Amino acid sequence: MAQNLALGIDIGGTNTAWGIVTPTAQIIESGSISTTGHGSIENYIAAIKAAVEPAMQRHGKALFVGVGVGAPSANYLTSEIVYAPNMPWHGIIPLGALLQQSLGLKCYVNNDANAATIGEMIYGAAKGMKNFILVTLGTGLGSGFVANGQMIYGHDGLAGELGHVIAVRNGRPCGCGRRGCLETYASATGIVKTVEEWLSERPDESVLRQQKGSITSKAIHEAALIGDALALEAFDFTAYILGQTLADAVAITSPEAIILFGGLAHAGDLLLKPVKKYMEENMLMIYKNKVAILPSALHGADAAILGASSMVWHRHP
Amino acid sequence: MAQNLALGIDIGGTNTAWGIVTPTAQIIESGSISTTGHGSIENYIAAIKAAVEPAMQRHGKALFVGVGVGAPSANYLTSEIVYAPNMPWHGIIPLGALLQQSLGLKCYVNNDANAATIGEMIYGAAKGMKNFILVTLGTGLGSGFVANGQMIYGHDGLAGELGHVIAVRNGRPCGCGRRGCLETYASATGIVKTVEEWLSERPDESVLRQQKGSITSKAIHEAALIGDALALEAFDFTAYILGQTLADAVAITSPEAIILFGGLAHAGDLLLKPVKKYMEENMLMIYKNKVAILPSALHGADAAILGASSMVWHRHP
Repeated sequence: MAQNLALGIDIGGTNTAWGIVTPTAQIIESGSISTTGHGSIENYIAAIKAAVEPAMQRHGKALFVGVGVGAPSANYLTSEIVYAPNMPWHGIIPLGALLQQSLGLKCYVNNDANAATIGEMIYGAAKGMKNFILVTLGTGLGSGFVANGQMIYGHDGLAGELGHVIAVRNGRPCGCGRRGCLETYASATGIVKTVEEWLSERPDESVLRQQKGSITSKAIHEAALIGDALALEAFDFTAYILGQTLADAVAITSPEAIILFGGLAHAGDLLLKPVKKYMEENMLMIYKNKVAILPSALHGADAAILGASSMVWHRHP
Repeated sequence: MAQNLALGIDIGGTNTAWGIVTPTAQIIESGSISTTGHGSIENYIAAIKAAVEPAMQRHGKALFVGVGVGAPSANYLTSEIVYAPNMPWHGIIPLGALLQQSLGLKCYVNNDANAATIGEMIYGAAKGMKNFILVTLGTGLGSGFVANGQMIYGHDGLAGELGHVIAVRNGRPCGCGRRGCLETYASATGIVKTVEEWLSERPDESVLRQQKGSITSKAIHEAALIGDALALEAFDFTAYILGQTLADAVAITSPEAIILFGGLAHAGDLLLKPVKKYMEENMLMIYKNKVAILPSALHGADAAILGASSMVWHRHP
């Protein structure tokens, strides 16, 4: 008998990627459309349908159990996108209801970090775990907390904003209007900020000085790989701030593992090892040597599609 | 038909209090024995049995659904007391198994803060809430986190140590061996420390100077009630540190309410109002004006017995 299928959709500010996914995380067909240029949200939904419907028919529409969608500022409890700063549509968008009506399938909508969290639980590094934390280190820092095998959504669906826990009192200004939020240090943007600041004070200490003003986290990673001292120190500092804050988060949910996901996590041990070290150094005794720091096991470009699709299997095991 | 009953036992370092409790939080009989002076744990268990068994027989032993026990350093997942610093017995004590065998009833063992948390959920200020935080402000600071209607125990039963989240980096030394833990500021002990420190620097600013060296949180509360400026400032400072840290905790579990329990919380609005103010000032926009700060609704001396007994109804609704 043919196996069940899920559609995973990852909505970004620029592109919308989709994939048809099996219960064992095989993407059997995928594609993408532009997120922008459609005008109304209804036209955008129609464009998604035009892209995915032929592929779904080809694989047997009756086999599809549901649709999982990851999107910025999405709220799982309401299936809405809520005031997303980088989306073409403003205010509150009833994305789940519109897609469900258009595709005729149950839709699960979640923010990117929560989708990735469920993805790790269903297909990835957190398989079989009932208590863990996922941290996405991209442009910002997102997170998902799982306790008793369930996502913590909070009373309003807005739980899991570890990126906006204050890591440094009166620290760097954050886009949220406050100061010292973890994501201003521990994210791709944060490590770039660190290096740009340090280069202003110590201009001769790094090969990165040639790129000053337009440094990327990838360039810092590459410089660190060839032994650039300032780049290595920037990874260490980023890990120090992140490790300290993770030690505090552990005291709240006592997870068996913390999984690092997204752009900056691709630096691997360059980041993971010092994060583990600083977390251990800052942790209450009862938690020491019990919490693993793991890399994501959702690999490559399709990680977000897998994350989105996993919500379907999470609700239809 | 006669109603079901639960036995609640609150184990402290000095006294062990017990009560027979109805599903609607009526304590129909209670008593206490000394925690110390029994020698072995087996003798202590026998002393508990000798105290409670006649009362249970009197009310009808067959009506009893179970026994709930609150104890320092207890682990719900294992029903053990684990290295409790202020208990007569050391190491790992299989309290639940011993009591269950002795009394012939299902026993639920939990630490004091978790027992109080379930108490608020079953009988108290969190009735009907699925996502909330309880904070006990006693000698130390304990906490219980509820998400999706369930206690967060973590993978090892040790979740919910908000008292050991770092509130002030490199701040006051804590009994745990680290620095700046929330409970070194926000607890009965913490506010006393604040006032003692300030009196050393500003000896003439408070009526409390007469008690310097032996100030209690109760004396600070009384001084604040008669308008003592330093005592009022100490409440404001305590609330400031607590409010900041609660704002960070909200970003993790997004609760609908935070309930303050225990000695220092008896100060009421003197503490609750500024905690609410500083929490709001420090919170990420999306959480503002949504999280209530509430006093415990488990009143008086019996609060701990009610908390302990509530675990029975939580598991046998």
